[in-house]
Amino acid sequence: IATDDNESLREFVDALMPARVAEFMEGLDARESWRVLEVADPERRVEVFGYFEPEKQTALVHALVGDGDAAAMSGLVADLPADDRVDLLRDVDEHVVDELIPLLPIEDRRETLRLRGFPEGTAGSVMTTEVVCLKENLSVAEALTEISKQALGVETVYYSYVVDDDRRLLGLLSARQLVTHYLNPDQPISELMERDVVTVLAMDDQEAVAETVADYDFLAIPVVDDNRRLLGIITHDDIIDVLRAEATEDALLSAGMAPLESGYLRTHWFTLACNRGVWIGVLFFAALLTAFALLRYEEAFDSVWWLVLFIPLVISSGGNSGSQSATLVIRGLTDGEVSLGDWRRVLRRELLMGLTLGTTLAALGFVSAWVLTRQAPEGHTAPTLVEVAVVPATLLLVVVCGTVCGGLLPLMFQRLGLDPALMSNPFVAGIIDIAGIVIYVTVAMAMIGGLAGG
Amino acid sequence: IATDDNESLREFVDALMPARVAEFMEGLDARESWRVLEVADPERRVEVFGYFEPEKQTALVHALVGDGDAAAMSGLVADLPADDRVDLLRDVDEHVVDELIPLLPIEDRRETLRLRGFPEGTAGSVMTTEVVCLKENLSVAEALTEISKQALGVETVYYSYVVDDDRRLLGLLSARQLVTHYLNPDQPISELMERDVVTVLAMDDQEAVAETVADYDFLAIPVVDDNRRLLGIITHDDIIDVLRAEATEDALLSAGMAPLESGYLRTHWFTLACNRGVWIGVLFFAALLTAFALLRYEEAFDSVWWLVLFIPLVISSGGNSGSQSATLVIRGLTDGEVSLGDWRRVLRRELLMGLTLGTTLAALGFVSAWVLTRQAPEGHTAPTLVEVAVVPATLLLVVVCGTVCGGLLPLMFQRLGLDPALMSNPFVAGIIDIAGIVIYVTVAMAMIGGLAGG
Repeated sequence: IATDDNESLREFVDALMPARVAEFMEGLDARESWRVLEVADPERRVEVFGYFEPEKQTALVHALVGDGDAAAMSGLVADLPADDRVDLLRDVDEHVVDELIPLLPIEDRRETLRLRGFPEGTAGSVMTTEVVCLKENLSVAEALTEISKQALGVETVYYSYVVDDDRRLLGLLSARQLVTHYLNPDQPISELMERDVVTVLAMDDQEAVAETVADYDFLAIPVVDDNRRLLGIITHDDIIDVLRAEATEDALLSAGMAPLESGYLRTHWFTLACNRGVWIGVLFFAALLTAFALLRYEEAFDSVWWLVLFIPLVISSGGNSGSQSATLVIRGLTDGEVSLGDWRRVLRRELLMGLTLGTTLAALGFVSAWVLTRQAPEGHTAPTLVEVAVVPATLLLVVVCGTVCGGLLPLMFQRLGLDPALMSNPFVAGIIDIAGIVIYVTVAMAMIGGLAGG
Repeated sequence: IATDDNESLREFVDALMPARVAEFMEGLDARESWRVLEVADPERRVEVFGYFEPEKQTALVHALVGDGDAAAMSGLVADLPADDRVDLLRDVDEHVVDELIPLLPIEDRRETLRLRGFPEGTAGSVMTTEVVCLKENLSVAEALTEISKQALGVETVYYSYVVDDDRRLLGLLSARQLVTHYLNPDQPISELMERDVVTVLAMDDQEAVAETVADYDFLAIPVVDDNRRLLGIITHDDIIDVLRAEATEDALLSAGMAPLESGYLRTHWFTLACNRGVWIGVLFFAALLTAFALLRYEEAFDSVWWLVLFIPLVISSGGNSGSQSATLVIRGLTDGEVSLGDWRRVLRRELLMGLTLGTTLAALGFVSAWVLTRQAPEGHTAPTLVEVAVVPATLLLVVVCGTVCGGLLPLMFQRLGLDPALMSNPFVAGIIDIAGIVIYVTVAMAMIGGLAGG
């Protein structure tokens, strides 16, 4: 770049794969990147641009339009696949969008405005409209010719869609079928095409669509309207992006954070602090309820010196078993293995699991509590065997409470139409914390003489 | 099935897509499923079988071989793609494997034994060896003819690999290039093929391979040996399976569980109880350390009545902020955004974050603690303003400790060659629990007169 040698720059860009070129350009700023893109031929330019990080794409658009070069940028934006174009314009400032859209060719402009109408997170918002469409009456050779003509403008040539005059979907023809029958050029494609095509609706949730494609091992899935008219397709790379984004989103939710727009290091420090701060604040107030509960039972802790020792143990045992159950059920719901109708099975499983794990921990807790309380400090008496039994009895109840709540709360959230991942580990743990303290003191009052009146 | 009507059964199997047929057969047992598969033609049979759940596949193999029908089963097993065959044989009992392998055709047998040599979790273990290979000197038309001949035996025709006589990889030719140049049948493929091919080694970790493919939007990635000889390819559907499995694995680890072989409801109850029990047990002993810590400081809690109120609050504030940091860093490592070299940036970010979040919670905690301790029960005196300041000071220190530990521990685990997801929320929380209690009491001793001598 430093030497201004356009010829060798162009050679460099053309020799490597677009994804590699984009990698090499990671260190360049917006202006420098544009210098490189400018010398490449338009087709390459769009490909390389497509591999930039979203932040870099946005910065490039802002820089160019800011410099009054909106015309050059609109050419590149027009050449982007329709779904990527819409994604990009979503991230760009509104006044820049207003400047760019009128500069797009009429066809692309209409397309863009239409796709922008689908809410984020729906199948419509991630689909591309550039699809190979074929008529039913073609032969293999005619279909290949037709595809080779349409090839430049579409995102994939591996699936072609056979439609009628109203663009209603009749069948799916894979490039595999065509290549396999390359030596029978006259065979009609209507004999080869798959008529039983799995489709999704434009307003379907993108996560559900991704799971469908993943289950069926499709390369792409067609998006249709209520009249089964073909609107576009969602391709395997978009599906992978959705699956990755959802995995990160669920992980963040499960640790008590809202999903981020971009990665950990790329997110601005202040944005991250606000996101984390809000949730930490909410969880703080949940935890504050434990302080109220403890205040209410202050007398119990005051008169039985060793009760305080096991507060964190009781709380964390319940929280951990609850987190396990919640995570298992949330993953089951995400993978489509568990559905709302399974709630009885989940309840039965978690009840049994709670009893098993609880009994195990109760046994461990009994021994530990007995050993620990033998070290009574001066002026205190060690509790009796029956008194120590408060700890195991509490552990059993708290663990059962944890597994059952952890198992059922995500299902309840799903039933209410909320993301079950919201019923995440810290929230389940927060609920169990308070339940744990109440159970602990109630059991203690029942089992330790002289405390009952409390 | 009830009516023994083979003809209509076969029609049913042939009319629908294989994935749909497999869905319809979900309710059938192993014997019934075999009845249906038997009437289908061999190609269909293999496809439908490929869509069964792994458990169903295994059950079918066991049932058939158990009934002495190993020959029929070996035919189906031989027709499976090599990678799926190896996966299946991994799940099947050893004596059944020993019965089946000798019945496979010599080529398939060799392949299977070779692939079984790659450890689970490596690129070699998920690759398929059935790939279209082309010589460099072909034209477009010759390549299409060659592909149409090889098409039946391979997993994908969308990427063909150009190799020399030693099977060394020279280039990649996509079906897209071929179809686009369908009207120039004489063009040499050496002009069209991509020479800068991204490859992976057979012993590479499957998760890293999946991230590479996802980053580049590939349909498949070639697996080569140290001499760049083509061993096989990993296709997009395997990549999606790996990504899904890893997401579930990380989620389970982050809730303190070992990864499961299959889903929540499908895993045997006892297996699940053992898995969860072991981890709950480990976490229990970590939590038990808090009881020891509290015992050591018993006197402090005895003489300052209100300290006990805020134990859960202090612990959970540290645990929650630590979980957030750990999850962000673990996801960053998984997505490839964060690397070991970033540890200074992570440290700086988390320190700053801890100070910010800690100050916020300290302010909230100061007010809450003041209000709460005004309700002193009979016979107790409310603490002074300075004494109450123990709570905010502790919160600040605990939150900083949480964010810094949460941010750095996954990096440390990565550095040690362990899965950073192991440094999961409950473990970070467990460490912070103990640190929280120690900090709490130390701060209290420093700030409350008469307690210092402890």
